[in-house]
Amino acid sequence: MATGSRASMVRSAASLIRSRGISATSLSDVLADSRAPRGSIYHHFPEGKRQLAEDAISWTSDRVLAHLRAGVPSRPSEVLERFIAMWRQVVVTSGGTAGCVVAGVAIDTGPDEEALMEVVRNAFRSWANVLADQLEAVGLPSSRARPIALATLAAMEGALILCRAEGNVKPLDAVAAELMRLLPSEKPVRRKRSVHSA
Amino acid sequence: MATGSRASMVRSAASLIRSRGISATSLSDVLADSRAPRGSIYHHFPEGKRQLAEDAISWTSDRVLAHLRAGVPSRPSEVLERFIAMWRQVVVTSGGTAGCVVAGVAIDTGPDEEALMEVVRNAFRSWANVLADQLEAVGLPSSRARPIALATLAAMEGALILCRAEGNVKPLDAVAAELMRLLPSEKPVRRKRSVHSA
Repeated sequence: MATGSRASMVRSAASLIRSRGISATSLSDVLADSRAPRGSIYHHFPEGKRQLAEDAISWTSDRVLAHLRAGVPSRPSEVLERFIAMWRQVVVTSGGTAGCVVAGVAIDTGPDEEALMEVVRNAFRSWANVLADQLEAVGLPSSRARPIALATLAAMEGALILCRAEGNVKPLDAVAAELMRLLPSEKPVRRKRSVHSA
Repeated sequence: MATGSRASMVRSAASLIRSRGISATSLSDVLADSRAPRGSIYHHFPEGKRQLAEDAISWTSDRVLAHLRAGVPSRPSEVLERFIAMWRQVVVTSGGTAGCVVAGVAIDTGPDEEALMEVVRNAFRSWANVLADQLEAVGLPSSRARPIALATLAAMEGALILCRAEGNVKPLDAVAAELMRLLPSEKPVRRKRSVHSA
């Protein structure tokens, strides 16, 4: 029961932050959205909103990483497509209103809030690292995999903001098509894959 | 005098929003930062924070457009470089803490705040349009200029968030190098001029 209300508060916090940023997300909003008992905040999150935001980021980040790792890409395009499709779904299912929890905290958080910004930084780094590792695993050299992974992350975060502004997924689709152009022609990469998969 | 305090409040609002988002920027913060007399808010911005945010976006957007239009690019790379260098300076001069005012409003603003989101949308569209127009003016077909402009805008907005998280400009530089790869080889565009790729 206690664990249930804790988890639902974290989910609610993630959902609210990605729609309105962290500053505009109050503890009362989280309680109302999660239907958790009023005392739950102080019981589960004695450090308050910062702790709840950290947990919302960690929860989101773990889901992103699990989604990426559940794929078994055989070509670089599949690596990017999996990441892009995930964000695309966020935009489409929310009617263009939801973005990324981590960005929602990053933009609102001052440089003095070092602990919270470290959680933000670690989330971004872990996503870029998994993308880069997967690109390398399907044949890209590290010198291309790392910057392409970072550019993909940056472009998707920016695209989510543009999608919010436009209220639709078109900016993300246009940006995604450009990201694909950063990848080498896939035929030679495919050849490498059969070597790697031995 | 009155005009002076109005302008300084708009500048302060822009400066604060790009460092902490709109929700965490209070009218008191703007007054303190701009050293405007207390009554100035109600005199110049009778509609309150939303009006101030709209003016901060318009002021920023006009500066971005003026900066872009002040350039006379002769190659596609120069179009992107001018836009990128502008954001790079924001990151470097702020020690990695400042981002984009428009993104700071976009992330915090709910879809119900239609008037404010329209100002956000118009700012983003105007930047993407100027970039695309300039890319076309130096020889790119519209079918390439438009998506490259949008991808550049998205990638820069995302890179600003990553730079905040890292506290330095490295993500922006890595992303910028990838954006340059979206451009065609520049020799045919400039015909006989020898060009070093960025």
